[in-house]
Amino acid sequence: MEGKWKSIDECDAFVALEELAKNPFDLSAENGLTPERMKKYICKGTEFDLLYCCQRVTEQVIDTLQLLADQCKVLEQFEEMRSGRVMNRIENFPSEERQVLHTSCRDIFSDTPACETASLQSKNDLAQLKKFLNELDEGDICNEFGQAFTTLIHVGIGGSDLGPRSVYEALRPYSQNNREVFFISNVDPDDSAAILERVDLSKTLVLVVSKSGTTLETLSNETLVRTALKDAGLDPALHCLAVTGKTSPMDNPKRYLRTFYMYDYIGGRFSSTSMVGAVMLGFAIGYEQLVEFLQGAAEIDEVAIKKDLRANPALLLAMLGVWNRTFLGMNNVAVLPYSQGLHRFPAHLQQCDMESNGKSIKRDSEAVAVKSGPIVWGEPGTNGQHAFYQLLHQGTEDVAVEFIGFRESQRKKDIKIKGSSSQQKLLANLLAQSMALAVGKNDVNPNKRFPGNKVNSILIADKLTPKSMGALLALYEAKIVFQGFCWNVNSFDQEGVQLGKILAGEILLAMKGKKSDRSLAQAFLDVACV
Amino acid sequence: MEGKWKSIDECDAFVALEELAKNPFDLSAENGLTPERMKKYICKGTEFDLLYCCQRVTEQVIDTLQLLADQCKVLEQFEEMRSGRVMNRIENFPSEERQVLHTSCRDIFSDTPACETASLQSKNDLAQLKKFLNELDEGDICNEFGQAFTTLIHVGIGGSDLGPRSVYEALRPYSQNNREVFFISNVDPDDSAAILERVDLSKTLVLVVSKSGTTLETLSNETLVRTALKDAGLDPALHCLAVTGKTSPMDNPKRYLRTFYMYDYIGGRFSSTSMVGAVMLGFAIGYEQLVEFLQGAAEIDEVAIKKDLRANPALLLAMLGVWNRTFLGMNNVAVLPYSQGLHRFPAHLQQCDMESNGKSIKRDSEAVAVKSGPIVWGEPGTNGQHAFYQLLHQGTEDVAVEFIGFRESQRKKDIKIKGSSSQQKLLANLLAQSMALAVGKNDVNPNKRFPGNKVNSILIADKLTPKSMGALLALYEAKIVFQGFCWNVNSFDQEGVQLGKILAGEILLAMKGKKSDRSLAQAFLDVACV
Repeated sequence: MEGKWKSIDECDAFVALEELAKNPFDLSAENGLTPERMKKYICKGTEFDLLYCCQRVTEQVIDTLQLLADQCKVLEQFEEMRSGRVMNRIENFPSEERQVLHTSCRDIFSDTPACETASLQSKNDLAQLKKFLNELDEGDICNEFGQAFTTLIHVGIGGSDLGPRSVYEALRPYSQNNREVFFISNVDPDDSAAILERVDLSKTLVLVVSKSGTTLETLSNETLVRTALKDAGLDPALHCLAVTGKTSPMDNPKRYLRTFYMYDYIGGRFSSTSMVGAVMLGFAIGYEQLVEFLQGAAEIDEVAIKKDLRANPALLLAMLGVWNRTFLGMNNVAVLPYSQGLHRFPAHLQQCDMESNGKSIKRDSEAVAVKSGPIVWGEPGTNGQHAFYQLLHQGTEDVAVEFIGFRESQRKKDIKIKGSSSQQKLLANLLAQSMALAVGKNDVNPNKRFPGNKVNSILIADKLTPKSMGALLALYEAKIVFQGFCWNVNSFDQEGVQLGKILAGEILLAMKGKKSDRSLAQAFLDVACV
Repeated sequence: MEGKWKSIDECDAFVALEELAKNPFDLSAENGLTPERMKKYICKGTEFDLLYCCQRVTEQVIDTLQLLADQCKVLEQFEEMRSGRVMNRIENFPSEERQVLHTSCRDIFSDTPACETASLQSKNDLAQLKKFLNELDEGDICNEFGQAFTTLIHVGIGGSDLGPRSVYEALRPYSQNNREVFFISNVDPDDSAAILERVDLSKTLVLVVSKSGTTLETLSNETLVRTALKDAGLDPALHCLAVTGKTSPMDNPKRYLRTFYMYDYIGGRFSSTSMVGAVMLGFAIGYEQLVEFLQGAAEIDEVAIKKDLRANPALLLAMLGVWNRTFLGMNNVAVLPYSQGLHRFPAHLQQCDMESNGKSIKRDSEAVAVKSGPIVWGEPGTNGQHAFYQLLHQGTEDVAVEFIGFRESQRKKDIKIKGSSSQQKLLANLLAQSMALAVGKNDVNPNKRFPGNKVNSILIADKLTPKSMGALLALYEAKIVFQGFCWNVNSFDQEGVQLGKILAGEILLAMKGKKSDRSLAQAFLDVACV
């Protein structure tokens, strides 16, 4: 490894930005938000445009953020990541020591992919999947009674669940052959029971997803589903599919109709474009639309290596986030899609962002000197307007808002009421909220006063399609990775999940009546379960 | 109005708590979290116990929080609220000037209700509902073809949606007669289209909920659904029900099969136990179980007037929240239910809390001197453990966590795997996470180090039932109201939603080609939609 990476606080531009942050642009001032500003602060990307006139930035701030990104070598690191360098590591202590190659899952359209071996693997996996989907379509694969499979239950948790689920929800209108997908994730037995009540198991494929093949929740749920299949007189080996790591305990062809693979170099929360997401999605929307989804992501990855911040929406989104987080001190990001189809997308980002950058140790194994990854949450608009927007407008905390919107609806089932369609009302509300947060409004009644100056940006595309969904996913993946580079944390491990697992084991021992060494577990159980 | 209410910073106890907050209890210290502490810091309530050993409090802190609650007259205000005093107001400026009587919806079991007229109204409304549900069961009300209604679409948004929806999701296993409920809320036309694709409209009741009868989203969605009914050859007046305010534009019996009422004295976000939630819930789980739900809430309201903080879980939860928010400086509350059934409950609380207390103006129309309501979000465990818990354990922000759990599953469809049932694994994980956040763990590898000292509490009940769901809802309603009293904000208005509505109107005008006076709206539209 040639030389340490710098974290932002070690860069010259950091001091300049700290200085600029003392007096950030005032959006609520007279002539703060002008038509000229609106036109100027747009970054046109593939599929999505990023409107950032409602950020508290000036051209000077953007220039200095560009400098900061350059000094942190954000893009160099991204290119090294894509080409297969071991980026999942920390220095001086044992760590995962893995490559980070989720981008290879869609780096399949170029003659000169960044990492040839990984892209070749992706193409092979996709070819396998295409063959399998074909066999399903042709009826070569069917159930015990010669009937087509119409339902798929996707069993996974965390990265094997949230990304695929949010993409499926977004692309439901593109489903083919009346196919439907359900998800089971929680170890709560009521999660699986509720799904199993609803499906016709005889026509159901069960896709079990776990890289390690040892995930407690997933294996428990797999067993529950296999038991239900057996109880229904069906053969689990004819209904179950696996996505797992090669040589994992789940890599056992006798138990699965078909097995697809994932690799150490693809982290769970970045795995939506790998077989983790692709098998389910291919089943639901068909191979051609799956490829469109991958293409949308691939195009973003290509734009994400552009040096110019103003022409690189992922990098710009990342650096605006760093500005808000590190320099303006906001610890919350609200992702607010004006699209019901994206209702689970904020939950995916919550994982992808908070698990990646919710760290206190830098890659040089020293403590971070600035605050790292923010708290991320969100709900669709306009719903949220009738819920938590009150606090965004008039509360005592500043939240950085990221709106997402579309010019057209997916299903086009819309009517005009009072002169405008529902889609127009939706879009009008998005724009109105962005403006309202920024400009505010004075009033003699202090209770009706809006301070304004609340930062937000808008990502807007024509329509939520497989391709734009792929773009949106990759845009945020790149954003999160870029920010991790700035804070110099390892965005690709998750050591913070380990302690809970160990203690859960101790409490389970206590439940079995085996007194645990650690009497705290026993005591807590006694207190909670009397 | 006799005298101003005090906000916490005007109380003697405030200074004492500020002093105590300089050196809060260290949960990660040796002998920080002990079996004795676990046993001591429990508050036994109806249905739920509150375990608060993992809060950074001592007996002295609790005593002083009690003092603070007393000095703010939190319980006196709660009693005045319940008995019908006009609590939705601010001084010196026009405000809503309304009573706040959501508690009257369940104050129907006592011979001496706090507000007799309101309780009488509640009883009358419930009698109407009972009669209607009976007619449905008996087949006296049925569709054009003499068939029973099996499906209900609940059309509302914000308070008319989130509470009822989260309760329905929690109580699905208690549904009767194979009845199913769907919800449409978003003005996004894809929301209604997705639901309308899935239901058999001929057997569907449509419940339209809007107090004002003018909610843009709800009226748009109602029109979309009515159009779909007509297109299917059905008569909307035979399928549509209304919940609305008396004399609202929706209060028109000719257009609805049946109309139920809500009142100015019940705010949307507190309306789950009013007809807003009750009609849908009665349809789904039947009248008897609806009454159990109300009883669970009523019992909490009775306990919520107990002076002793240590015997009043709602008050304790509120004051611990004030301690974390105002004295320890945490601006985020994560509500983490270890129950898949509660997957939408955090979204309801997000509204109920953030819309109530996300305010900067006190009831005396002066600016707040301390930070008011926190940001609230959450997802079910164990799912969240594989998502954002990384940041909770090792990130650079402290989040106050409120766990919710149950000793038994709802459906009892469970099996033992590796010696424990899924429900046991679920509960073990809840307890383990609570402990892990509190005690932390040292390690030579800084990346595997857990600082601990992360505050959390656990609400635990035997099982998620109609009754415990009612209790949980009322517990949080009371918590939020108590905290509003502490911060001296008006928890019952939502002026922060107005500006966005006005600007949305301007943008819609611009969309219709009518140049708006405010050229900013036109400019933004041009920029977003080129």
